[in-house]
Order: sequence, then C-alpha cells, then structure tokens
Amino acid sequence: MDPVNDLDTELPGHVERALADYLERAGEGIGHVEQFAEPRRALVSFVLGGGKRMRPTFAWWGWRGAGGASGGERAEATLYAISALELIQACALIHDDVMDDSHSRRGAPTVHVSFAAKHTERDWHGSAERFGLASAVLIGDIALAWADDMFNSAGLPATALSAAQPAWHAMRTEMLAGQYLDIVNQVTADPSPEAAMRVDELKTAAYTVQRPLHLGAALGGAGPELIAELQAFGRDVGIAYQLRDDLLGLYGDPAVTGKPAGDDLREGKRTLLVALGLEHAKQQGKHALAATISDAVTGPEPTDTQIERAVSALDEVGAVDSVERRIGELTGSALAALERADVAEPAATKLAELAHTATSRTF
Amino acid sequence: MDPVNDLDTELPGHVERALADYLERAGEGIGHVEQFAEPRRALVSFVLGGGKRMRPTFAWWGWRGAGGASGGERAEATLYAISALELIQACALIHDDVMDDSHSRRGAPTVHVSFAAKHTERDWHGSAERFGLASAVLIGDIALAWADDMFNSAGLPATALSAAQPAWHAMRTEMLAGQYLDIVNQVTADPSPEAAMRVDELKTAAYTVQRPLHLGAALGGAGPELIAELQAFGRDVGIAYQLRDDLLGLYGDPAVTGKPAGDDLREGKRTLLVALGLEHAKQQGKHALAATISDAVTGPEPTDTQIERAVSALDEVGAVDSVERRIGELTGSALAALERADVAEPAATKLAELAHTATSRTF
Repeated sequence: MDPVNDLDTELPGHVERALADYLERAGEGIGHVEQFAEPRRALVSFVLGGGKRMRPTFAWWGWRGAGGASGGERAEATLYAISALELIQACALIHDDVMDDSHSRRGAPTVHVSFAAKHTERDWHGSAERFGLASAVLIGDIALAWADDMFNSAGLPATALSAAQPAWHAMRTEMLAGQYLDIVNQVTADPSPEAAMRVDELKTAAYTVQRPLHLGAALGGAGPELIAELQAFGRDVGIAYQLRDDLLGLYGDPAVTGKPAGDDLREGKRTLLVALGLEHAKQQGKHALAATISDAVTGPEPTDTQIERAVSALDEVGAVDSVERRIGELTGSALAALERADVAEPAATKLAELAHTATSRTF
Repeated sequence: MDPVNDLDTELPGHVERALADYLERAGEGIGHVEQFAEPRRALVSFVLGGGKRMRPTFAWWGWRGAGGASGGERAEATLYAISALELIQACALIHDDVMDDSHSRRGAPTVHVSFAAKHTERDWHGSAERFGLASAVLIGDIALAWADDMFNSAGLPATALSAAQPAWHAMRTEMLAGQYLDIVNQVTADPSPEAAMRVDELKTAAYTVQRPLHLGAALGGAGPELIAELQAFGRDVGIAYQLRDDLLGLYGDPAVTGKPAGDDLREGKRTLLVALGLEHAKQQGKHALAATISDAVTGPEPTDTQIERAVSALDEVGAVDSVERRIGELTGSALAALERADVAEPAATKLAELAHTATSRTF
C-alpha cells in the first residue's frame, strides 16, 4: 500500500518524514555559510530526535474529524502544515531549557549546554556559558521562524490557509503567554489552584490539544459548531493530560518520563497538585506538611530528602487523590463532548482513544 | 488630504500607526490573563519607542518602485504587511541585548534588565537576573510570532502573499544566521575581512535592505529582473550602511548614535574596520598597533584607555580611510544599479536619496 494513501497509519512516522524533508530544504539560500551547518544540525537532531508528536496527532484527527481525506495531495499538504507544530514545540523546549537552565532533555544535553561544551572544547574566546545561551536563543528563534515558513509553504489552498489563521495565531500567543504566566507563578509563589489552572489552560490545554484540533478542523473546512465542540473536548483532555504529567513527574518512573523525579518541585513549578496540597494541608490543620511542601517549591535548592518528604506530604494530605479525581472527571466530560460532536469516523474513535492514552497512568 | 491617499509622505508615522493598531488587537483572545499585560506593554513601548523604520521604508519604496499605489485599500494592506518588519527587528534587538547582556538601548534599560528590576523591586522569589532573561526571551518570541501574524493578516490578496513568501522566508533566516555568524566570529576571533563581510552581507545587507526591497517589490508584482536589480542595489547600500554604522560606533557622537562610543570593540565585534585595521597594521609591520587593536576586541573587559588607543590605532593604520573608500565605492555601485533598473518614479529618486542618507556621516 502506498503510504501516501493512508496517513492514518503510522502518523508519527509521516510527521517525521515531512519534518526531515522540510528541514533538508529550509534556509537553502544560506547553504554557502558553512558556520550555519552546526546550529542547523542541532535543530534537525533535536526535532527528529524524539517526542510523541502529540500536537500534529491531534491536528490530524481534527482534520479527519472534519471530513478531510486520509491520503492524496491535499492530505499530504495538511500533513506538512501540521507537522510545523513540532517546530513551534522545538522553540518552546529549547528556550524553556535556557530559561530554566536545564541540563538534560530526552537523556541528552540541552542545546545551550551542548553549545557551551563546543565552546570549551575548542578553547574559544569569551564565556562558554554565554555562547551556549546565545546559540540556543537563536536556534529556538530559527525553529519558530521555520515553523511559520513550513506552515505557509505546505501547499495548502488559499481558502484553507486563511481558515486556519485564527487557530495558528492564537496557538502561538497562548503558548508564549502560558510560558510567561508559568514563570510569574514561580517567582510570585502564587499558591492558588486558580493560578495553576490558568497555566494549564494556556500552556497545555490550548497549545497542545485544543488549538491543534481547531487548526486541523479548520483546515478540513469545519464550521464553527464542530470547532467549538472539538475545542471543548480538547480543553478537558489537555488539562487532564497536564495533571497526569504533573503526577508522573513526581510519582512516575524517570526511565519512562525521561526526567529526574521531582524536577518540577526543584524548579519551583506551581502545579495544581502543589496548590491543592497546600490548600488541603491548611484545611486539615497540618501546618508542618504545608511547610514541607512550601519549602520544597520556594526554598533555594531543596535537598533530595526535602523533595521526597514533599512528595509524601502531597500524597498524605490527599492532593494526589484530588488530582486523580479531576483527571477522571475531565476525561469523562471530554468524552461526553466528543459524543455530542458530529465527528466523522474513524476520527471519533481515534480521539476517544487519545483521550484515554493521554490521561492514563502509563502514557 | 486624507493620509490614506498618500502614504509616501510621513511614511514612518504611518508605519507606527499600523503597528499601534495591530498591537492593540494582537493576542486579544488572552486579554483575560492579567499577568500578560506587563510583557505586552513592554513590547508595545519597545516597538513604538523608537527606530528609524528603515526596513519598512525600503520595503515601501520597493512596492512603489514596482508600480504599487501610494494610497487606497491595497496600499494600506501593504503598509500593514511591511510594518511587520519592525516586529522582527524588535525580536532581533531584544534577543541581541540578552545575548550580549547589554544594559541600555535607546537611552532606556534593555528589556531583560527592566524585568529583572521589576523582580527585585517586588521582592519576588528566585533570581531576578534569570527572571529578566526568561521574560526577554519570551517577549522576543512573541514579537517574532506576531510579526508573522501581522504579515499574514494584513489583508493582502492571496497572489501577493504567495509572491512575497520567498523574500519573507529568506529574510528571517538570513537575519538569524547572520546573528549566529556574528557571535561565532566573536568567539573564534576570526580576524579576516571575509568573515566580517559575510556577517555584513547577511545581517545588514540582506536583512535590512535587500530583502525588504525584494519583499516590497514582490508585493507590487515585480518580475524577476526588477527584483534582481533592486537586490543588487540593496546589497551594496546595505553593506555601506553597516560600514558607516561601524565607523559611527567608534567615531560618532554617543548622543546621536544612542550608545556609548566603542561598545562594538568592548563586545568583541569583528567588524570589517577591525579586520582591515589588523591586516593593515601587519602589512605595515606595526605590530604594537596590531596588538592594541587585537587586545581591545579579544581581551577580557578592556579599559576605556585601551578602547581609546585601539580607536586611534585603527585610524593611524588607515583602516578608517579604507572603510570610507569602500562606503564611497559601494554607494556608487548601488546608484549605478539603480540607474540601470526600471524603477518607477518617485521611487527611483527616493531610493537614491535613501542610499545617500543611509551611508552618510550624519545618519
């Protein structure tokens, strides 16, 4: 079977093929600048080196749910357009690692750390750290610029491109606003569940699920009603997915999650889990447990023991149960929204499956 | 006279009107997120707070040179599209200031410095410096994303949008590749005039003059011949402008240039002036002068005296004269290319004027 006739099967592989093809050609006008080969290679291996391809996957099923074809020329153009979401994500992650000064990602050194290492190895002038930072800022910028280029040169008809603009525009702004809100919550140590939810709504729900579905559906010519229903589904799945991710970050297996357990606490991230932990502890009059949780997220450089105690405290006050319950409720309401929506098959079945896997304990 | 009927007059004012209008509406879907008001305001005041609007100006005269109208609906859409160039430039400058850790720009604190100061004033948690850096990275990203959004939602006909894609894509990649090349030249201390010229070609010539002209001309429906002629003109004007800027940075009045004299040397920038200074000094056997120049750009934190001596040394070995001669030659060849080109009036006259002002001693 010609794979182009059935993009439904092995979708992540097709997304990677589209990305590899685009990145081969991107910025070809500056091929003569040999120094640019290194940052380009770094971006290519970052983009092709991993990731669940969640955003293009939701976008694809938005397209299919709106009646878009599974193969042929138009489907191929759509595949290219939605694969560009992985370039936005590359910018988000590369810049996020700079902002948090994270040292590893997917088991490899982060971009700024790896460029700082090149500087040191080659005995270059000036500060290696600063060179690493500057390189990663620029490589993230290139990813963001190329995301737009890939999207706009995917070969979509002008009407589809125009119908998709609102989703494309909103998605990037929501991601960046969500990132900013996240750092503001950290530095202000905002303890409220509402603050945590606002970040989850923008950074994960909107950017990761809701807008990709909106984008795909708009490319498939969906009307406002179907788009609204898919967005309602996407919002709830997206928040539930983030809550699962928060739990896995503390109680999951680092070999599976790819990052050390407790990193969110170490970075002072104000997740809903932490906010509910503080709220529950106070309601139960357990001030020592509240202090244990609070110290781990606001204190300077918590020790591993402090992290372990905070992780236990969150469980003990019932925050883990509360978050599990919310995941269940959100998954339920997402599936109900999907039932109500007029989504074409096989997309309806696929989206229901995605709602389960994205929010399940083993994802 | 209705200003919309004659955008030729007071063009920078029209560009600012378009930017103010767009920024008022940009990302309106997240208006409810009150924490986002501060980075948005910072971006708005950065974009509206200054700048010569060179890139939209060259793009406008590319449009007019290809026969585009000076007013009316289509001209207004073009104005919006090319004003987006100022948002790309905002990203370039905000990120550049982060990368160089510059503290002031246009007489005001840079974005990362001002956000670090907010953190300190408010006694927030964690590192003020890191918060400043993260905020500036995100605000620059927002500028880059909104540049694309503004360009793509300017109301251009699909054919014009599609004709302009190659210029729009190449321009952003060339800018970012030029920035990367610039930092590589600094850390490798590449002393060759060729390395300096490669940066000037990408970062200034292509990004500031050549591609804006290409973009405007493509929006006006120019054929490949006119585009090639305008690009030849733009390349030479762009390089000459950068060489003038390098001279003004060392020999100009800080009150006019807006930055302390000698900053390029302090930052270790490998300008053509420095490269020729080193080359001339060696050819003349003046090794002490070569060392003076070299130490100022490669040494750690040169003193004001070291900077002053390097500035004198560059003049003494004849590098200033060489650069002045090149500026003259490039301006001449640019004007010759313009003569040959089939550029509609009043654009031909305006572009010739721009070639003079951009490369003159008083710009």
